[in-house]
Amino acid sequence: MFELAQSLADLLGPKGWLSGDEAQPYRRDWLNRYGEMPLGVARPTTTSEVGAVVSLCRQAGVAVIPQGGNTGLCGGAVAGKAGGVILSLARMAAIGQPDAASGSVVVEAGAILAALHEALLPRGLIFPLHLGAEGSARIGGLIGTNAGGSHALRYGLMQDLVLGVEVVLPDGSVWDGLRAVQKDNAGYQLRKLFCGAEGTLGVVTRAVLKLFPAPRQRVTALLCLPAWEAALRFGGHLRSEAAEFLSGLECFCDSGLSLSLKHLRELTFPLETRGEVYLLVELASASARVPLEEILTAALQWGMEQELVLDGALAMSEAQRGHFWRLREEQPEGQRLEGAQLKHDIAVPPGRLSEFIADGAALCESLLPGVRINPFGHLGDGNTHYNLSPPEGAVDFSGREAEIGQALAALATRMGGSFAAEHGLGRAKIGLADKNRSTVERELMARLKRALDPSGLMNPGVVIAWEPKE
Amino acid sequence: MFELAQSLADLLGPKGWLSGDEAQPYRRDWLNRYGEMPLGVARPTTTSEVGAVVSLCRQAGVAVIPQGGNTGLCGGAVAGKAGGVILSLARMAAIGQPDAASGSVVVEAGAILAALHEALLPRGLIFPLHLGAEGSARIGGLIGTNAGGSHALRYGLMQDLVLGVEVVLPDGSVWDGLRAVQKDNAGYQLRKLFCGAEGTLGVVTRAVLKLFPAPRQRVTALLCLPAWEAALRFGGHLRSEAAEFLSGLECFCDSGLSLSLKHLRELTFPLETRGEVYLLVELASASARVPLEEILTAALQWGMEQELVLDGALAMSEAQRGHFWRLREEQPEGQRLEGAQLKHDIAVPPGRLSEFIADGAALCESLLPGVRINPFGHLGDGNTHYNLSPPEGAVDFSGREAEIGQALAALATRMGGSFAAEHGLGRAKIGLADKNRSTVERELMARLKRALDPSGLMNPGVVIAWEPKE
Repeated sequence: MFELAQSLADLLGPKGWLSGDEAQPYRRDWLNRYGEMPLGVARPTTTSEVGAVVSLCRQAGVAVIPQGGNTGLCGGAVAGKAGGVILSLARMAAIGQPDAASGSVVVEAGAILAALHEALLPRGLIFPLHLGAEGSARIGGLIGTNAGGSHALRYGLMQDLVLGVEVVLPDGSVWDGLRAVQKDNAGYQLRKLFCGAEGTLGVVTRAVLKLFPAPRQRVTALLCLPAWEAALRFGGHLRSEAAEFLSGLECFCDSGLSLSLKHLRELTFPLETRGEVYLLVELASASARVPLEEILTAALQWGMEQELVLDGALAMSEAQRGHFWRLREEQPEGQRLEGAQLKHDIAVPPGRLSEFIADGAALCESLLPGVRINPFGHLGDGNTHYNLSPPEGAVDFSGREAEIGQALAALATRMGGSFAAEHGLGRAKIGLADKNRSTVERELMARLKRALDPSGLMNPGVVIAWEPKE
Repeated sequence: MFELAQSLADLLGPKGWLSGDEAQPYRRDWLNRYGEMPLGVARPTTTSEVGAVVSLCRQAGVAVIPQGGNTGLCGGAVAGKAGGVILSLARMAAIGQPDAASGSVVVEAGAILAALHEALLPRGLIFPLHLGAEGSARIGGLIGTNAGGSHALRYGLMQDLVLGVEVVLPDGSVWDGLRAVQKDNAGYQLRKLFCGAEGTLGVVTRAVLKLFPAPRQRVTALLCLPAWEAALRFGGHLRSEAAEFLSGLECFCDSGLSLSLKHLRELTFPLETRGEVYLLVELASASARVPLEEILTAALQWGMEQELVLDGALAMSEAQRGHFWRLREEQPEGQRLEGAQLKHDIAVPPGRLSEFIADGAALCESLLPGVRINPFGHLGDGNTHYNLSPPEGAVDFSGREAEIGQALAALATRMGGSFAAEHGLGRAKIGLADKNRSTVERELMARLKRALDPSGLMNPGVVIAWEPKE
């Protein structure tokens, strides 16, 4: 162990190898649920250094835990056992010159998502992935978790936006799959395999990402609706009327709004009406010739006539738009400040979301009467963060956490959905996966793991519990 | 062998098991380059029958070759050695009720693409994959080859359109991955792995496909341009001006037009001007409020002022639109009727297509002076079928086929592109893959193959040459 630490220190220098107190900030996950003390933190600056780190660890039989911005919610980027090496690509954060004619850009895995957004701004291009943690989340982690976020209904997940990748494999060799074309069918889709593998099959070091023309115009509305069923009906209408411009169709509920207004005093609510559900609707077009506001206004009018929409406001400025989005994005924070919480990450076929919310509420109530439900998230793609707070006055969930989580997972599964929609499995949801997915499916995944990482040292204990026999 | 044939005949009945003369129509590939005589053709009607066929073959040590519409161009759906069992899912062609609220539909793998298009027509929904062979190609084959086609620039490839799959694995067990959500990150993206695996890792039996609202309006133009460089510049302008409505940006060249007009006498050319390149541009919107024609007209006017566009016509009727598309889609047929031909399937970063066409032409000319170049295909995503006819007066390529193919593949590879963009590797391009891709990449693919199909009986000799040691 000491020998490995010495080799890594020699290889990477004082900025590239952190141990002891310096390693502490990398130790625990965002929700502070996981993370043992690592041997140290490797911070290489080149792909070949990454390869050397992985090789040295393999020779020493030491686990490698890739860590991006460490904003994940499932504990996939910290060590399950003491003594592993955390591999941070924070010093590999270069963003290449975008190729506007081809719509792509090469970035290093340590680049922060918001920095990429900013770098593209003056070029009239966008990388359309957006999520709450974009100020800290790094491209490598976003690829590893196959991140989704609030624009996925239009632009897809990370796997839809990655054209090519460079990966350091578990044996330290480098796969150069940095091709910059959408159509590449020369064999298995390896580039897709590394999206969502959570660093268990290798470490993504660079990627070619797909870019889109920046919107020339955008309209954003905050709406108040009487019920989830109404929200779904209105969402369906928007999907067909706002069509290819519909970039965001986000939702939160009245109980969540109350929590965020209570705990985040600077927030204000701009509508006069309260209802069960709020929608944040955003339309955007790269063409200046589309009557976006007219399209949205007509849809709103229809919604009001149908009594699906109670109240609403269009953002009149960029500041107001930011305020509307903040109301949606502070939902997790409002709930966190209320005390104990249970987070879930459910997707169901979008047309069945209100059914899930109702049936899920009944299940939760039967398991823990009075438990407070706070579903929010991405109405457009059926992904809701079906979060819970304890019953009014209670400080915890009376030990029913696992039961509730399993009940919701089973319900989503029966509806053709997922209990791990966009946060991945990490360490937190392996048990749920083993319970709710077939043994055939879990065995297929174990086979992939064994085939690509036979020594089992790449992020062990994440995605699959498998470890090689000693 | 006789025993296996008898078991399969017993299992599947007279309509489900074809041998001898009845198996002949399944034997050869579309281009009649590959295909040995199979033991017979299994035509099961249920997933469990598919599982039983695969199990029986495995017990007997006999290869299984999944075959869809058999329209592939790389020989991936016929037997490399005599005596295998061809597995056709033609009798599993059911198309489920589309779920309009969720934007998805369940289909059996034997469903023909055009039948799916037709079934969706009255529902106001589309499945946006389009290609020349859509009247014969089956969903299972389209998934197996990760098909692209002419709308991929807007809607992506098959892998972008498949939400869930059901797969019979090489041991005959069934993986039920028929989930109907975009966001499912409960482990490795298995659903993506089977897209493009060409039946070598299992047989796709059913799929959940993503649907979109049908366009309410569409405009189509046929344009004549002076050169490839102009076509790229105009294409770039369209990408930013026509933005999210740009559904098709197809190209063909003057030599190809001449061949199709010569051999397909019913074709007529509607423009008065000839140039080096022709573009077929299609804009579509699900919203009736977008001034599509105005957007396209403005772009055309800009193109003419910039001297990038020489001439053009908007389709004034559905019949005329069909005629424009036929000019593009008959390019392969016109060339085929001219005699010997060499087909290539190249993708490069879209902004570098004219560079590829010029450099490729010089390479070809140096290898075989006078060889006639006929690039056509998908300008929007950089995928060109860089096809060749022999020099005027010659009947063949003087034995330079492999050299030319390799020179073009190497050029595309150097440019960050692919030599197997949308037709896959099949049997035809394994050699090219072994030459133009790193050993690391090929070994990764071999590992996946060994992990999922250790007995090597699923479509052996396709994608990877690997076979298990006896």
